[in-house]
Amino acid sequence: MTSDHVSVSDATQAAAVAHRAVSQRPHTDRAAWLEALADALDAHSSELVALADDETHLGEARLTGELARTSAQLRMFADVVREGSFLEAAVDHPDPNATPPIPDLRRMLVSLGPVAVFAASNFPFAFSVLGGDTASALAAGSTVVVKAHEGHPELSRRVASLAHTALQTEGAPDGTFTMVEGRETGVDLVRDPKIRAVGFTGSVSGGRFLFDVATQRPEPIPFYAEMGSINPVVVTPGAAAHALGEVADGLVGSFTLGVGQFCTKPGVTFAPAEAGLAAALGERVDLQPKALLNDRIGAGYRHRLNEITDLDGVEVVRGSEPSEDSHAAPVVLRTTAVRVLEQPEDLLDEVFGPAALVVDYSSLDELRQALAVLPGTLTATLHAAPEEEALAAELLDVLGRVAGRVLYGGWPTGVAVSHAQHHGGPYPSTTSVHTSVGTTAIRRWMRPVAYQTTPDALLPLPLQEANPLGIPRRVDGVLRPPSS
Amino acid sequence: MTSDHVSVSDATQAAAVAHRAVSQRPHTDRAAWLEALADALDAHSSELVALADDETHLGEARLTGELARTSAQLRMFADVVREGSFLEAAVDHPDPNATPPIPDLRRMLVSLGPVAVFAASNFPFAFSVLGGDTASALAAGSTVVVKAHEGHPELSRRVASLAHTALQTEGAPDGTFTMVEGRETGVDLVRDPKIRAVGFTGSVSGGRFLFDVATQRPEPIPFYAEMGSINPVVVTPGAAAHALGEVADGLVGSFTLGVGQFCTKPGVTFAPAEAGLAAALGERVDLQPKALLNDRIGAGYRHRLNEITDLDGVEVVRGSEPSEDSHAAPVVLRTTAVRVLEQPEDLLDEVFGPAALVVDYSSLDELRQALAVLPGTLTATLHAAPEEEALAAELLDVLGRVAGRVLYGGWPTGVAVSHAQHHGGPYPSTTSVHTSVGTTAIRRWMRPVAYQTTPDALLPLPLQEANPLGIPRRVDGVLRPPSS
Repeated sequence: MTSDHVSVSDATQAAAVAHRAVSQRPHTDRAAWLEALADALDAHSSELVALADDETHLGEARLTGELARTSAQLRMFADVVREGSFLEAAVDHPDPNATPPIPDLRRMLVSLGPVAVFAASNFPFAFSVLGGDTASALAAGSTVVVKAHEGHPELSRRVASLAHTALQTEGAPDGTFTMVEGRETGVDLVRDPKIRAVGFTGSVSGGRFLFDVATQRPEPIPFYAEMGSINPVVVTPGAAAHALGEVADGLVGSFTLGVGQFCTKPGVTFAPAEAGLAAALGERVDLQPKALLNDRIGAGYRHRLNEITDLDGVEVVRGSEPSEDSHAAPVVLRTTAVRVLEQPEDLLDEVFGPAALVVDYSSLDELRQALAVLPGTLTATLHAAPEEEALAAELLDVLGRVAGRVLYGGWPTGVAVSHAQHHGGPYPSTTSVHTSVGTTAIRRWMRPVAYQTTPDALLPLPLQEANPLGIPRRVDGVLRPPSS
Repeated sequence: MTSDHVSVSDATQAAAVAHRAVSQRPHTDRAAWLEALADALDAHSSELVALADDETHLGEARLTGELARTSAQLRMFADVVREGSFLEAAVDHPDPNATPPIPDLRRMLVSLGPVAVFAASNFPFAFSVLGGDTASALAAGSTVVVKAHEGHPELSRRVASLAHTALQTEGAPDGTFTMVEGRETGVDLVRDPKIRAVGFTGSVSGGRFLFDVATQRPEPIPFYAEMGSINPVVVTPGAAAHALGEVADGLVGSFTLGVGQFCTKPGVTFAPAEAGLAAALGERVDLQPKALLNDRIGAGYRHRLNEITDLDGVEVVRGSEPSEDSHAAPVVLRTTAVRVLEQPEDLLDEVFGPAALVVDYSSLDELRQALAVLPGTLTATLHAAPEEEALAAELLDVLGRVAGRVLYGGWPTGVAVSHAQHHGGPYPSTTSVHTSVGTTAIRRWMRPVAYQTTPDALLPLPLQEANPLGIPRRVDGVLRPPSS
């Protein structure tokens, strides 16, 4: 049965049955499943990259790297499963003298149940069929129904087919992973009573619509959406004075990467007016048009670009709107901090595509006022000179209030997959406080259960007194790594 | 200014200003604030218990214990703050060979901002002004606006006044804690843009109404509601054969505790038909009426009791509806598993007050079918005989799917405050996967921030390379307790 013929109800029914089977097995079984998925991607890298390039125009180099990142992510979650901290196992031995008395209590996280994952268009591997949401959900012990993205249907089908084979070979229950297709399936999937949580990567309008569906169900479910983000950059007077060329080089590289179709694209940069950053960017951009992901993205980009350039006080420094066949050259826009304060919601809104807005400020007070109206964002980046330590501390504090990742120097595109990573920020960049990249992404799919005065033999393995799996646990309040 | 004159907007404005000040200070300062609050409660125990008894009729013994539990909870969070694990600090050193390369990344949790706490009526200390929500939020670094419960206004004002004095004496910023009053203030508080999360304890109807307000804001915020729960108990054939008297004694004690006004009251018990559990309960209940919390609770109890006793196949084994002045004697109801399967939504719904429903099952298959339609619940309790190990394993698995805490033997009333505790379950018992009791309750008020390539001196103390606070951290993926 190919995925374009799988109905939502068949997929969720299979996922529910499989979830019971998965729950009966040692959690460590899942590590081998994740590694088999990683191996399948790597073994078919050339074929998959070629399919992806046909459907997304993102280029072989970028796609090869993205596939490698995606298989590495699957392997990282295999390690997370084996290490066992993600279970957050805690054991409290009885304490009759506590207020109130403490009985034998043992707590761990278990999976929420079957979950839905909405694939994104702009990362056809890393945020698609076997991307971070699927990898973390499988690691958690959830079963997964992926809603394929219409932007790369053939790639999605091929990856799903490889996934089925890999999971079957490793002995995962049928229904552990299923893919469904069709724009109209999305709402049905979010409303399906068997689905217990949703991961989504896409636009604010699409994400908010489905968030509302999820929260207005008779039984609301968590809806983890990663949506739009302006990823502000602040260039201090010191950085502008000492390193304007370097900043301009880096910013052009970052905002045009992947034809500006990264959720972490630095969209709005605050710079001293006298530095002329917008002009410096204009001199550096390569006006050769490149293919956007698809015509839908092209139309959205054109619409939003027209919207922002129609605003008073927004100057097009260089570039033009995308062609009818959705090829786009970079666009550099310029405005002032005073204008931002007058119309923050229109100016500080994502432009998905290769456009960058420079906001000139004429004093630090103007900068402070403008930063106070920043919306929630995935990332925020500060470029400061070493001697501006007090100013840098102040600005990092301000940026940390609105962003999930704060960079000192460097550029936000390129999201490392690691333990200390976080990809998520205040609304509208995400709908929850959780991350969709990095090891803690697994927690989104889990809920705690505490067992009280339960005989050892009836407890799940991670909670048995002897700690047979050797996982880290908190015992009577003290964190104990596996070795102790 | 007394709390009945504080407006929502004044309170949230003060909380927002205070939150900036709190964020600038070492997180360990908060431990002393929490201890000062605990000391204030303990120092005024007799006075506060007398006030509480006047307003709630819960009795001196119970209220004295509840106050001690509440101050112990504040002290526990002081310990949690000092220990530092709650920050979930993680440090990844650069790894240029990773796919993609890992820059220096350091992640920790920070507070979400000012939060709102809705006090409950049934625990005038433990789930009220300085209860678990307030304690965990202050520990997290949030500032708190408490909406007082109308059921105990004088007690609430006195506790708030003691809290103000204690916090001021310890040097906490003004606005760290504020109480507002008035039923109509609730919606304004949840809608206030400065409020970043809400904790609520109360009914399903009230909780769901405010959950919808919170999730439908322009910027949705987390709404952690602990609502209704039937807390099912399963008595196996073995337990009924060997220990029916003991089970009946324990169940009567638990469902009548606090005049049946515990969120963890065991409301529905499945027992073998031939055991006659309902009759055994009827013989044991003390029909002396006791005062319910207030007339509103009395009216709600009467309404719901009439609703359930009007259903076909529900027998009143013993007891009667509450008096007009809201005094209630225990009520024992009986129905069958067959009836539950016919009308699960009406029969498996909370009765808030001293009523217990016994569901007689005539075979294990009937029991299994009935358990399959259980709604989400805070707790589920199994009473089995030692020789029924396979059945017990099966039933624990089933109960663990719908409950946040699973008990083998014992009774669910009385919620220990400890590291392995969890108080929360699938909807409608709570609106989220998080807990409102135990140390991990703190995580509800926090969000992650990752710092990338940030100079050591500009990092928050918990993330600096030397780990100056000596807190547990995950370094390059390896969990390191403070000693190592």
